[in-house]
Amino acid sequence: MSSASKRDAFLAVWPSLATELVDYLRAEGMPQDAVSWFQRSLDYNTPGGKLNRGISVVDTVEILKGSSLTDDEYKRAAILGWCIELLQAYFLVADDMMDQSITRRGQPCWYRVDGVGNIAINDAFMLEAAIYYLLKKHFRQEKYYVDLLELFHEVTFQTELGQLIDLITAPEDSVDLSKFSLEKHHLIVVYKTAYYSFYLPVALALHMAGVTSPSAFQQSLDILIPMGEYFQVQDDYLDCYGTPEQIGKIGTDILDNKCSWLVNLALKKASPEQRKVLDDNYGVKSSDSEARVKAVYAELDLAREFEQYEQDSYARINALIDAIPAQGSQDGLKREVYQSFLAKVYKRQK
Amino acid sequence: MSSASKRDAFLAVWPSLATELVDYLRAEGMPQDAVSWFQRSLDYNTPGGKLNRGISVVDTVEILKGSSLTDDEYKRAAILGWCIELLQAYFLVADDMMDQSITRRGQPCWYRVDGVGNIAINDAFMLEAAIYYLLKKHFRQEKYYVDLLELFHEVTFQTELGQLIDLITAPEDSVDLSKFSLEKHHLIVVYKTAYYSFYLPVALALHMAGVTSPSAFQQSLDILIPMGEYFQVQDDYLDCYGTPEQIGKIGTDILDNKCSWLVNLALKKASPEQRKVLDDNYGVKSSDSEARVKAVYAELDLAREFEQYEQDSYARINALIDAIPAQGSQDGLKREVYQSFLAKVYKRQK
Repeated sequence: MSSASKRDAFLAVWPSLATELVDYLRAEGMPQDAVSWFQRSLDYNTPGGKLNRGISVVDTVEILKGSSLTDDEYKRAAILGWCIELLQAYFLVADDMMDQSITRRGQPCWYRVDGVGNIAINDAFMLEAAIYYLLKKHFRQEKYYVDLLELFHEVTFQTELGQLIDLITAPEDSVDLSKFSLEKHHLIVVYKTAYYSFYLPVALALHMAGVTSPSAFQQSLDILIPMGEYFQVQDDYLDCYGTPEQIGKIGTDILDNKCSWLVNLALKKASPEQRKVLDDNYGVKSSDSEARVKAVYAELDLAREFEQYEQDSYARINALIDAIPAQGSQDGLKREVYQSFLAKVYKRQK
Repeated sequence: MSSASKRDAFLAVWPSLATELVDYLRAEGMPQDAVSWFQRSLDYNTPGGKLNRGISVVDTVEILKGSSLTDDEYKRAAILGWCIELLQAYFLVADDMMDQSITRRGQPCWYRVDGVGNIAINDAFMLEAAIYYLLKKHFRQEKYYVDLLELFHEVTFQTELGQLIDLITAPEDSVDLSKFSLEKHHLIVVYKTAYYSFYLPVALALHMAGVTSPSAFQQSLDILIPMGEYFQVQDDYLDCYGTPEQIGKIGTDILDNKCSWLVNLALKKASPEQRKVLDDNYGVKSSDSEARVKAVYAELDLAREFEQYEQDSYARINALIDAIPAQGSQDGLKREVYQSFLAKVYKRQK
């Protein structure tokens, strides 16, 4: 199936889930304005992104099964996928408020929509609550139900930890590069992004496929967390070196004092003079300052460093994948799950 | 035990739970500034209130057991109690942001503490995440573990629904009394307050006491939801008619356009002239307007109406309690659980 028709099939499941959720509000006797509000929040915040995380649950379940999914299997895998998208919606609605962002996915951030404002905090909470409503409704009978709940709890906490470190390390309005380091960057990207974006989809699919061995989950983690880190380093690289046509936006990491891989690498390699340029210009809202930071990046040859990092990461992740036997592991893992993830990520331009 | 020493015993459990939570962050390799931040948020936002909800879990477990709790039983009941206090902390940190409140429990609201600001949104999320961390750590082996998880999920969602109706019915800056009604008031107080403050503590204690019958939980709900509603109506009454010495604050429900029981009753009983006074003055930030609203309340004899409501509620709730056999029900309920709750609430002056 093409990636566009995969997306369409996945999107086609959403309206029925949104309907189940608003029907719950109706059954609880909620007034019509509250029901409409929730429907609007669900539809505004949940679909509309790339949906890679959600779709990868379906893809992974199919690979693990080794043949096409029945309609029922597809639906259930897609529900788990939409639960990740709801988790992402919960985070993004809140992150946009904390970052005072303006737009998200080409439309105003939810809190900036007329009449919403700080009610968006409660809307974020309700997006999270929707996850557990759907899990209970559709997975309560499964042996792995409690594992699903614990997985969402744990990954949610981890993502919030990543967000906390990011917020206190790189506040937009107070630049202090001495707080930055490649180790801090590693923690932020692993906790804020890799767990929920890379590990969670595969772990959900493994549960659905009946995998129970703790070592299978551990081995998945050992592959997917470095892959998520590599993905985020690419993101940081593209923010600076990707064209707006490639990445669909103009990168602002330098202006916004982001704890990017690039600045951390620059800090590690900088001479005292270069360090001073970074201290004086990073996070300053001026294109001149941004240009001076980029000049240091060029002097330090960071684009070349990234290429080397990309090669090393690719080799290292492939080696981890190749530790799974070619015919699949005894506890149910298949190389193809991780290879297909890595293929989507490697040398991506957007 | 006196209520002060009950409170002290319950409070004595908190530091070990906060330590478990920050130790988790340490074990995940979080930097010291993030660990300290979380410790501070936990201690600032979780204890410090009346702790009635948390303590009532312990009280209820003891009544259901029928004898003193062992140290281990006490500790486990107190952990469930602290999970409610964490849930409350999660709601209050967020509610204060949504209401733009200034103080909470005699100190600045968390989001107004220097350096916190909108990071408080993520801190609220982490207070919620702490609940599931503690439940997993201490209750994972119990048959009722999944029931605890579902109970917290469901009550959380219900409370968020109540908050949503409240926020869109009674925004502080846009007065429209045509949105108000006693039915709307009923929905708001049941969902926003009664489920988590009255039903949740008892339901948790029932699980811990080994009660499994769905009808026992339903019967508890049938008693405790009206009790929670009665409690909130008292709260609304005291906001207007309690002295600052009694209630520890100056009531501002009229100034703040709150969907109070009093205004809803007034709207129901008002003549067209009185209605105009309410429309023109409710939610207006002036003590003259407030006085005019209170004059309408006096004309409509709302204090007398409250007394009647209180008598009726007390009789109705007692009748529901008396439906439990005096020697206890077959499925494990005891009248004393609900009588002791009601005794704490009936004719309270603060």
